[in-house]
Amino acid sequence: MSAAETTAVVDLLGVLAYAELTAFDRLAEDARLAPSLSGRAALARMAGAEISHHVCLVTRLTELGADPEAAMAPFVGALDTFHESTRPNTWLEGLVKAYVGDGLAADFYREIAEFLPEPDRTIVQEVLADTGHADFAVREVRAAIAADRRVAGRLALWARRLVGEAITRTQAVVAERDELGRLIIEGMGDLGGVARLIDRITSAHRVRMRALGLRD
Amino acid sequence: MSAAETTAVVDLLGVLAYAELTAFDRLAEDARLAPSLSGRAALARMAGAEISHHVCLVTRLTELGADPEAAMAPFVGALDTFHESTRPNTWLEGLVKAYVGDGLAADFYREIAEFLPEPDRTIVQEVLADTGHADFAVREVRAAIAADRRVAGRLALWARRLVGEAITRTQAVVAERDELGRLIIEGMGDLGGVARLIDRITSAHRVRMRALGLRD
Repeated sequence: MSAAETTAVVDLLGVLAYAELTAFDRLAEDARLAPSLSGRAALARMAGAEISHHVCLVTRLTELGADPEAAMAPFVGALDTFHESTRPNTWLEGLVKAYVGDGLAADFYREIAEFLPEPDRTIVQEVLADTGHADFAVREVRAAIAADRRVAGRLALWARRLVGEAITRTQAVVAERDELGRLIIEGMGDLGGVARLIDRITSAHRVRMRALGLRD
Repeated sequence: MSAAETTAVVDLLGVLAYAELTAFDRLAEDARLAPSLSGRAALARMAGAEISHHVCLVTRLTELGADPEAAMAPFVGALDTFHESTRPNTWLEGLVKAYVGDGLAADFYREIAEFLPEPDRTIVQEVLADTGHADFAVREVRAAIAADRRVAGRLALWARRLVGEAITRTQAVVAERDELGRLIIEGMGDLGGVARLIDRITSAHRVRMRALGLRD
């Protein structure tokens, strides 16, 4: 790897490592909103999966000779701000955030991982694998909408707010990290590549919204 | 297993399953008091280990034909009250609670597990294995005391309060669960057995306090 490439890889692993740590935190917090002990345990289990992903990423950062704490540091502000500004008020909002928000983020990171050399491409794909959010969230949200149709409108608005915040934060982070930005732009090739990437991410987002029974 | 024995085993697995779920919660909460990202990740990792223990216990409860949620329910009140009344205010108080409090509880549960039939004896011994609390807590607390001697006195008082609360709550729980109480009393045989059990638990507690650099 060239020095610039290493910087980009360390940046991507660093942002993901901190994202997994905040995902842990958030799922642990949302677990307390659960209406039942089994719902609470389900979210706690997902949080446990996130933290093992965090450990994988930290191990890889150490192998690359990077200091994991320093690699995460540049992304703490942006991710904390995102989570502060999108703190769920209800159990269902938490589930939508975990499914729609994390789904969108995972799609984006997976696209970037395609531009990475091995073994980092595979490591990133593995830590982004679904940890059981999907089925669980879809089941709970659909059941809630079936019980009360008005829930759907409120949750659709909430999902739209999440997506808006996520895009703003991502742009801010990428703009500040030169090598990471270059990796993405070179990987995509040209404006056509950018458009296709946005298309793929948007369609996957629509599929998730429909799975929940929400209009995008 | 006789019906009474099954009830006792389900009680013990139920209280432990809920204890692991609250341990997860508490470690996740205390992780936010961490003075560094690596300390925060260390506690989050321990929380992840607790939740996999919880999953083991729930699996075993299901195998025994018990409803895990119903098995945990009788212990929710006592354990929640214990944690509410011993909520750490600082990072160090959290570590002392994890090491001294969980250590004492684990010793007690391990003693009871000796009276269980297999495979439950082994399952309980496994979920009570240390998840990395010990070394981590000892290192952090000793470093803090080395930096400021006054910390030791405050933390020793805190440990004493934890032990007092733990004993009160445990007595209340055992008194309410007939079969579990009988299992313990029959297992210990006579008053001599009770005295020896208390002796063993007390000496292990002293060893932990000394390891932290605290007077018991």
